[in-house]
Amino acid sequence: MAERGLLIVFSGPSGVGKGTVLKQFMQTQQNCTISISATTRAPRPGEQEGVDYYFIDKERFERMIAGDAMLEYACYGGNYYGTPRGPVEEQLRQGINVILEIELVGALKIKEQYPKGVFVFVMPPSIQELRRRLTSRGTEKEEAIALRMEAARTEMEQAMLYDYIIVNEDVEDCCRKFEAIVVAEGCAVRHRKEFIREVSQNA
Amino acid sequence: MAERGLLIVFSGPSGVGKGTVLKQFMQTQQNCTISISATTRAPRPGEQEGVDYYFIDKERFERMIAGDAMLEYACYGGNYYGTPRGPVEEQLRQGINVILEIELVGALKIKEQYPKGVFVFVMPPSIQELRRRLTSRGTEKEEAIALRMEAARTEMEQAMLYDYIIVNEDVEDCCRKFEAIVVAEGCAVRHRKEFIREVSQNA
Repeated sequence: MAERGLLIVFSGPSGVGKGTVLKQFMQTQQNCTISISATTRAPRPGEQEGVDYYFIDKERFERMIAGDAMLEYACYGGNYYGTPRGPVEEQLRQGINVILEIELVGALKIKEQYPKGVFVFVMPPSIQELRRRLTSRGTEKEEAIALRMEAARTEMEQAMLYDYIIVNEDVEDCCRKFEAIVVAEGCAVRHRKEFIREVSQNA
Repeated sequence: MAERGLLIVFSGPSGVGKGTVLKQFMQTQQNCTISISATTRAPRPGEQEGVDYYFIDKERFERMIAGDAMLEYACYGGNYYGTPRGPVEEQLRQGINVILEIELVGALKIKEQYPKGVFVFVMPPSIQELRRRLTSRGTEKEEAIALRMEAARTEMEQAMLYDYIIVNEDVEDCCRKFEAIVVAEGCAVRHRKEFIREVSQNA
Protein backbone atom coordinates (compact mmCIF):
# COMPACT_ATOMS: atom_id res chain seq x y z
CA MET A 1 0.00 0.00 0.00
CA ALA A 2 1.51 3.31 -1.04
CA GLU A 3 0.71 5.54 1.91
CA ARG A 4 1.40 9.22 1.88
CA GLY A 5 4.03 10.42 4.35
CA LEU A 6 3.14 12.59 7.32
CA LEU A 7 3.83 16.29 7.28
CA ILE A 8 5.19 17.07 10.74
CA VAL A 9 5.64 20.60 12.00
CA PHE A 10 8.12 20.94 14.83
CA SER A 11 8.09 24.25 16.71
CA GLY A 12 9.08 25.67 20.06
CA PRO A 13 10.67 28.73 21.58
CA SER A 14 14.25 29.53 20.75
CA GLY A 15 16.55 27.80 23.24
CA VAL A 16 14.23 24.93 24.02
CA GLY A 17 16.51 22.42 22.29
CA LYS A 18 14.66 21.62 19.07
CA GLY A 19 17.86 21.20 17.08
CA THR A 20 19.41 18.73 19.52
CA VAL A 21 16.24 16.69 19.72
CA LEU A 22 15.80 16.51 15.94
CA LYS A 23 19.41 15.56 15.40
CA GLN A 24 19.14 12.66 17.82
CA PHE A 25 15.71 11.69 16.55
CA MET A 26 16.92 11.44 12.96
CA GLN A 27 19.60 8.92 13.93
CA THR A 28 16.96 6.25 14.49
CA GLN A 29 14.63 7.10 11.61
CA GLN A 30 14.59 5.49 8.21
CA ASN A 31 11.51 7.12 6.85
CA CYS A 32 11.78 10.73 7.95
CA THR A 33 13.46 13.71 6.44
CA ILE A 34 13.91 17.29 7.59
CA SER A 35 12.76 19.84 5.06
CA ILE A 36 15.49 22.18 3.85
CA SER A 37 14.56 25.84 3.81
CA ALA A 38 15.33 28.28 1.05
CA THR A 39 16.90 31.62 1.92
CA THR A 40 18.12 34.74 0.19
CA ARG A 41 20.88 35.35 2.69
CA ALA A 42 24.43 34.60 1.69
CA PRO A 43 25.91 31.24 2.72
CA ARG A 44 28.08 31.38 5.82
CA PRO A 45 31.45 29.69 5.77
CA GLY A 46 30.91 25.94 5.76
CA GLU A 47 27.24 26.03 4.80
CA GLN A 48 26.35 23.83 1.85
CA GLU A 49 23.75 24.34 -0.83
CA GLY A 50 20.95 21.79 -0.47
CA VAL A 51 22.21 20.67 2.93
CA ASP A 52 21.92 23.71 5.19
CA TYR A 53 19.71 25.74 2.87
CA TYR A 54 18.82 26.24 -0.72
CA PHE A 55 20.53 29.54 -1.40
CA ILE A 56 18.56 31.49 -3.98
CA ASP A 57 18.39 35.12 -5.00
CA LYS A 58 15.69 37.55 -4.02
CA GLU A 59 14.15 37.73 -7.46
CA ARG A 60 13.74 33.99 -7.69
CA PHE A 61 12.38 33.80 -4.12
CA GLU A 62 9.76 36.41 -4.96
CA ARG A 63 8.83 34.59 -8.15
CA MET A 64 8.34 31.45 -6.07
CA ILE A 65 6.12 33.33 -3.62
CA ALA A 66 4.07 34.72 -6.50
CA GLY A 67 3.81 31.26 -8.06
CA ASP A 68 2.64 29.69 -4.79
CA ALA A 69 5.79 27.61 -4.70
CA MET A 70 6.54 28.47 -1.04
CA LEU A 71 4.50 26.66 1.58
CA GLU A 72 5.34 29.40 4.04
CA TYR A 73 7.96 32.11 4.26
CA ALA A 74 9.09 34.94 6.49
CA CYS A 75 11.45 37.85 6.32
CA TYR A 76 14.14 38.35 9.01
CA GLY A 77 16.85 40.96 8.90
CA GLY A 78 16.07 41.79 5.32
CA ASN A 79 16.36 38.19 4.11
CA TYR A 80 13.69 35.75 3.09
CA TYR A 81 13.44 32.28 4.58
CA GLY A 82 10.87 29.80 3.35
CA THR A 83 9.82 26.22 2.68
CA PRO A 84 9.76 25.29 -1.01
CA ARG A 85 6.64 23.30 -1.81
CA GLY A 86 8.12 21.00 -4.48
CA PRO A 87 10.47 18.78 -2.45
CA VAL A 88 7.99 18.51 0.44
CA GLU A 89 5.17 17.38 -1.84
CA GLU A 90 7.39 14.92 -3.67
CA GLN A 91 8.63 13.29 -0.46
CA LEU A 92 5.16 13.02 1.03
CA ARG A 93 3.98 11.38 -2.19
CA GLN A 94 6.80 8.84 -1.85
CA GLY A 95 5.58 7.99 1.64
CA ILE A 96 8.38 9.79 3.47
CA ASN A 97 7.52 11.73 6.63
CA VAL A 98 8.68 15.32 6.26
CA ILE A 99 9.58 17.42 9.30
CA LEU A 100 9.43 21.20 9.10
CA GLU A 101 11.25 23.03 11.89
CA ILE A 102 9.44 26.35 11.69
CA GLU A 103 7.90 29.01 13.87
CA LEU A 104 4.35 29.62 14.88
CA VAL A 105 3.35 31.94 12.04
CA GLY A 106 4.70 29.53 9.45
CA ALA A 107 3.04 26.63 11.28
CA LEU A 108 -0.36 28.30 11.04
CA LYS A 109 0.21 28.86 7.35
CA ILE A 110 1.00 25.15 6.93
CA LYS A 111 -2.08 24.18 8.90
CA GLU A 112 -4.32 25.98 6.41
CA GLN A 113 -2.82 23.96 3.57
CA TYR A 114 -2.31 20.65 5.37
CA PRO A 115 -5.09 20.24 7.90
CA LYS A 116 -3.88 16.63 8.35
CA GLY A 117 -0.39 17.79 9.29
CA VAL A 118 0.96 16.79 12.69
CA PHE A 119 1.77 19.84 14.81
CA VAL A 120 4.27 19.34 17.62
CA PHE A 121 5.36 22.06 20.02
CA VAL A 122 8.38 21.62 22.29
CA MET A 123 8.12 23.39 25.63
CA PRO A 124 10.61 24.02 28.38
CA PRO A 125 9.66 22.49 31.76
CA SER A 126 9.27 26.05 33.02
CA ILE A 127 9.92 29.56 31.88
CA GLN A 128 12.75 29.85 34.40
CA GLU A 129 14.45 26.89 32.81
CA LEU A 130 14.19 28.49 29.37
CA ARG A 131 15.86 31.64 30.67
CA ARG A 132 18.60 29.52 32.21
CA ARG A 133 19.22 27.72 28.93
CA LEU A 134 19.30 30.93 26.91
CA THR A 135 21.66 32.58 29.39
CA SER A 136 23.98 29.58 29.62
CA ARG A 137 24.62 29.67 25.88
CA GLY A 138 26.64 32.75 26.68
CA THR A 139 26.26 34.02 23.14
CA GLU A 140 23.62 36.65 23.70
CA LYS A 141 23.28 39.92 25.54
CA GLU A 142 20.72 40.39 28.28
CA GLU A 143 18.67 42.55 25.93
CA ALA A 144 18.49 39.88 23.22
CA ILE A 145 17.55 37.32 25.86
CA ALA A 146 14.75 39.55 27.12
CA LEU A 147 13.39 39.74 23.58
CA ARG A 148 13.57 35.98 23.14
CA MET A 149 11.83 35.48 26.49
CA GLU A 150 9.04 37.79 25.44
CA ALA A 151 8.64 35.89 22.15
CA ALA A 152 8.64 32.60 24.07
CA ARG A 153 5.76 33.77 26.28
CA THR A 154 3.66 34.66 23.25
CA GLU A 155 4.53 31.43 21.51
CA MET A 156 3.74 29.27 24.50
CA GLU A 157 0.27 30.69 24.82
CA GLN A 158 -0.20 29.60 21.23
CA ALA A 159 0.90 26.04 21.96
CA MET A 160 -2.81 25.27 22.27
CA LEU A 161 -3.04 25.51 18.49
CA TYR A 162 -0.75 22.51 18.10
CA ASP A 163 -1.71 18.83 18.35
CA TYR A 164 1.02 17.78 20.76
CA ILE A 165 3.34 19.34 23.27
CA ILE A 166 6.53 17.72 24.41
CA VAL A 167 8.12 19.02 27.56
CA ASN A 168 11.84 18.90 26.97
CA GLU A 169 13.12 17.76 30.35
CA ASP A 170 15.84 15.69 28.77
CA VAL A 171 16.76 14.89 25.20
CA GLU A 172 16.26 11.12 25.44
CA ASP A 173 12.77 11.42 26.82
CA CYS A 174 11.86 14.14 24.35
CA CYS A 175 13.05 11.96 21.44
CA ARG A 176 11.16 8.96 22.72
CA LYS A 177 7.97 11.00 22.86
CA PHE A 178 8.50 12.45 19.42
CA GLU A 179 9.04 8.94 18.04
CA ALA A 180 5.86 7.77 19.74
CA ILE A 181 3.92 10.64 18.17
CA VAL A 182 5.16 9.71 14.71
CA VAL A 183 4.27 6.02 15.20
CA ALA A 184 0.88 6.85 16.72
CA GLU A 185 0.01 9.28 13.96
CA GLY A 186 0.77 6.52 11.49
CA CYS A 187 -2.12 4.64 13.15
CA ALA A 188 -4.47 7.62 13.34
CA VAL A 189 -7.77 6.93 11.65
CA ARG A 190 -7.70 10.33 10.01
CA HIS A 191 -4.72 9.13 7.94
CA ARG A 192 -5.97 5.57 7.41
CA LYS A 193 -9.50 5.94 6.05
CA GLU A 194 -8.55 4.49 2.67
CA PHE A 195 -7.11 1.39 4.28
CA ILE A 196 -10.17 0.84 6.49
CA ARG A 197 -12.45 1.17 3.48
CA GLU A 198 -10.37 -1.31 1.55
CA VAL A 199 -10.33 -4.00 4.24
CA SER A 200 -14.01 -3.71 5.06
CA GLN A 201 -15.11 -3.60 1.44
CA ASN A 202 -13.11 -6.67 0.56
CA ALA A 203 -15.00 -8.37 3.34
CA MET B 1 1.53 17.73 38.66
CA ALA B 2 -1.44 15.44 39.32
CA GLU B 3 -2.59 14.56 35.83
CA ARG B 4 -5.69 12.54 35.19
CA GLY B 5 -5.12 9.14 33.61
CA LEU B 6 -6.22 8.35 30.07
CA LEU B 7 -9.34 6.33 29.43
CA ILE B 8 -8.42 3.97 26.61
CA VAL B 9 -10.97 1.92 24.76
CA PHE B 10 -9.56 -1.14 23.02
CA SER B 11 -11.83 -2.83 20.51
CA GLY B 12 -11.63 -5.09 17.50
CA PRO B 13 -13.38 -8.05 15.96
CA SER B 14 -13.39 -11.34 17.79
CA GLY B 15 -10.31 -13.36 16.80
CA VAL B 16 -8.11 -10.40 15.98
CA GLY B 17 -5.87 -11.06 18.98
CA LYS B 18 -6.83 -8.28 21.41
CA GLY B 19 -6.27 -10.46 24.46
CA THR B 20 -2.77 -11.54 23.44
CA VAL B 21 -1.75 -7.97 22.64
CA LEU B 22 -3.07 -6.56 25.91
CA LYS B 23 -1.43 -9.28 27.94
CA GLN B 24 1.96 -8.55 26.41
CA PHE B 25 1.41 -4.79 26.55
CA MET B 26 0.69 -4.89 30.28
CA GLN B 27 4.01 -6.56 31.01
CA THR B 28 5.86 -3.33 30.22
CA GLN B 29 3.41 -0.86 31.76
CA GLN B 30 3.61 0.64 35.19
CA ASN B 31 0.80 3.11 34.90
CA CYS B 32 -1.95 1.21 33.09
CA THR B 33 -4.67 -1.04 34.33
CA ILE B 34 -7.31 -3.09 32.54
CA SER B 35 -10.81 -2.41 33.76
CA ILE B 36 -12.57 -5.41 35.25
CA SER B 37 -16.11 -5.96 34.03
CA ALA B 38 -19.06 -6.88 36.17
CA THR B 39 -21.30 -9.75 35.12
CA THR B 40 -24.36 -11.58 36.34
CA ARG B 41 -23.26 -14.90 34.91
CA ALA B 42 -21.97 -17.53 37.30
CA PRO B 43 -18.20 -17.80 37.74
CA ARG B 44 -16.60 -20.59 35.70
CA PRO B 45 -14.16 -22.94 37.38
CA GLY B 46 -10.97 -21.02 38.15
CA GLU B 47 -12.44 -17.54 37.67
CA GLN B 48 -11.79 -15.18 40.53
CA GLU B 49 -13.92 -12.38 41.90
CA GLY B 50 -12.30 -9.02 41.19
CA VAL B 51 -9.72 -10.58 38.88
CA ASP B 52 -11.68 -12.03 35.98
CA TYR B 53 -14.94 -10.27 36.75
CA TYR B 54 -16.94 -8.75 39.53
CA PHE B 55 -19.65 -11.35 39.94
CA ILE B 56 -22.87 -9.69 41.05
CA ASP B 57 -26.53 -10.68 40.99
CA LYS B 58 -29.07 -9.44 38.51
CA GLU B 59 -30.92 -7.29 41.00
CA ARG B 60 -27.77 -5.44 42.01
CA PHE B 61 -26.70 -5.06 38.37
CA GLU B 62 -30.05 -3.51 37.50
CA ARG B 63 -29.87 -1.18 40.50
CA MET B 64 -26.43 -0.08 39.25
CA ILE B 65 -27.82 0.57 35.78
CA ALA B 66 -30.67 2.59 37.27
CA GLY B 67 -28.23 4.54 39.46
CA ASP B 68 -25.98 5.35 36.48
CA ALA B 69 -23.20 3.31 38.06
CA MET B 70 -22.45 1.39 34.84
CA LEU B 71 -20.45 3.24 32.20
CA GLU B 72 -21.77 0.83 29.60
CA TYR B 73 -23.38 -2.57 29.66
CA ALA B 74 -24.78 -5.21 27.37
CA CYS B 75 -26.78 -8.37 27.65
CA TYR B 76 -25.52 -11.62 26.07
CA GLY B 77 -27.14 -15.01 26.47
CA GLY B 78 -29.39 -13.73 29.23
CA ASN B 79 -26.52 -12.32 31.30
CA TYR B 80 -25.48 -8.76 31.89
CA TYR B 81 -21.90 -7.59 31.33
CA GLY B 82 -20.83 -4.06 32.12
CA THR B 83 -18.18 -1.60 33.24
CA PRO B 84 -18.70 -0.26 36.77
CA ARG B 85 -18.08 3.46 36.85
CA GLY B 86 -16.60 3.68 40.37
CA PRO B 87 -13.24 1.93 39.95
CA VAL B 88 -12.63 3.52 36.54
CA GLU B 89 -13.24 7.03 37.84
CA GLU B 90 -11.09 6.44 40.90
CA GLN B 91 -8.14 5.15 38.88
CA LEU B 92 -8.33 7.98 36.35
CA ARG B 93 -8.36 10.43 39.24
CA GLN B 94 -5.18 8.83 40.58
CA GLY B 95 -3.50 9.37 37.23
CA ILE B 96 -3.67 5.74 36.12
CA ASN B 97 -4.49 4.96 32.48
CA VAL B 98 -7.49 2.66 32.35
CA ILE B 99 -8.02 0.30 29.41
CA LEU B 100 -11.49 -0.96 28.58
CA GLU B 101 -11.62 -3.97 26.29
CA ILE B 102 -15.14 -3.56 24.97
CA GLU B 103 -17.16 -3.77 21.80
CA LEU B 104 -18.33 -1.10 19.44
CA VAL B 105 -21.70 -0.38 21.05
CA GLY B 106 -20.10 0.00 24.47
CA ALA B 107 -17.33 2.12 22.96
CA LEU B 108 -19.85 4.58 21.53
CA LYS B 109 -21.54 4.77 24.91
CA ILE B 110 -18.15 5.58 26.50
CA LYS B 111 -17.43 8.21 23.86
CA GLU B 112 -20.56 10.12 24.83
CA GLN B 113 -19.37 10.28 28.42
CA TYR B 114 -15.62 10.63 27.84
CA PRO B 115 -15.13 12.63 24.68
CA LYS B 116 -11.42 12.80 25.58
CA GLY B 117 -11.12 9.03 25.72
CA VAL B 118 -8.65 7.36 23.41
CA PHE B 119 -10.35 4.94 21.03
CA VAL B 120 -8.21 2.21 19.54
CA PHE B 121 -9.45 -0.40 17.10
CA VAL B 122 -7.42 -3.49 16.26
CA MET B 123 -7.87 -4.77 12.72
CA PRO B 124 -6.75 -7.93 10.99
CA PRO B 125 -4.43 -7.36 8.01
CA SER B 126 -7.24 -8.71 5.83
CA ILE B 127 -10.61 -10.32 6.22
CA GLN B 128 -9.18 -13.59 4.89
CA GLU B 129 -6.62 -13.58 7.70
CA LEU B 130 -9.35 -13.08 10.29
CA ARG B 131 -11.24 -16.10 8.95
CA ARG B 132 -8.05 -18.14 9.06
CA ARG B 133 -7.44 -17.17 12.70
CA LEU B 134 -10.99 -17.93 13.75
CA THR B 135 -10.93 -21.28 11.97
CA SER B 136 -7.53 -22.26 13.35
CA ARG B 137 -8.77 -21.92 16.92
CA GLY B 138 -10.67 -25.11 16.17
CA THR B 139 -13.18 -24.32 18.91
CA GLU B 140 -16.07 -23.15 16.78
CA LYS B 141 -18.42 -24.54 14.20
CA GLU B 142 -18.57 -23.13 10.68
CA GLU B 143 -21.92 -21.54 11.52
CA ALA B 144 -20.56 -19.67 14.53
CA ILE B 145 -17.58 -18.54 12.47
CA ALA B 146 -19.88 -17.22 9.75
CA LEU B 147 -21.72 -15.20 12.40
CA ARG B 148 -18.49 -13.81 13.78
CA MET B 149 -17.31 -12.90 10.29
CA GLU B 150 -20.54 -11.06 9.64
CA ALA B 151 -20.13 -9.14 12.91
CA ALA B 152 -16.50 -8.37 12.01
CA ARG B 153 -17.55 -6.81 8.70
CA THR B 154 -20.01 -4.51 10.42
CA GLU B 155 -17.51 -3.62 13.12
CA MET B 156 -14.73 -2.85 10.70
CA GLU B 157 -16.85 -0.38 8.80
CA GLN B 158 -17.30 1.35 12.12
CA ALA B 159 -13.56 1.55 12.75
CA MET B 160 -13.80 5.05 11.30
CA LEU B 161 -15.42 6.12 14.56
CA TYR B 162 -12.25 5.34 16.48
CA ASP B 163 -9.16 7.53 16.84
CA TYR B 164 -6.59 4.90 15.92
CA ILE B 165 -6.43 1.61 14.12
CA ILE B 166 -3.69 -0.90 14.65
CA VAL B 167 -3.27 -3.61 12.07
CA ASN B 168 -2.35 -6.74 13.97
CA GLU B 169 0.24 -8.30 11.68
CA ASP B 170 2.26 -9.52 14.61
CA VAL B 171 1.96 -9.12 18.34
CA GLU B 172 5.27 -7.31 18.90
CA ASP B 173 4.52 -4.66 16.33
CA CYS B 174 0.97 -4.26 17.53
CA CYS B 175 2.19 -3.77 21.12
CA ARG B 176 4.79 -1.26 20.05
CA LYS B 177 2.15 0.77 18.25
CA PHE B 178 -0.24 0.62 21.17
CA GLU B 179 2.52 1.81 23.50
CA ALA B 180 3.31 4.66 21.10
CA ILE B 181 -0.34 5.69 21.10
CA VAL B 182 -0.43 5.81 24.89
CA VAL B 183 2.78 7.89 25.05
CA ALA B 184 1.65 10.20 22.25
CA GLU B 185 -1.75 10.75 23.82
CA GLY B 186 0.03 11.73 27.02
CA CYS B 187 1.49 14.60 24.94
CA ALA B 188 -1.75 15.51 23.16
CA VAL B 189 -2.65 19.14 23.67
CA ARG B 190 -6.26 18.17 24.31
CA HIS B 191 -5.12 16.50 27.54
CA ARG B 192 -2.48 19.11 28.47
CA LYS B 193 -4.30 22.43 28.34
CA GLU B 194 -3.97 22.99 32.07
CA PHE B 195 -0.22 22.49 31.93
CA ILE B 196 0.22 24.85 28.98
CA ARG B 197 -1.81 27.50 30.76
CA GLU B 198 0.28 27.07 33.89
CA VAL B 199 3.65 27.41 32.18
CA SER B 200 2.68 30.37 30.04
CA GLN B 201 0.95 32.19 32.86
CA ASN B 202 3.92 31.80 35.16
CA ALA B 203 5.92 33.43 32.40
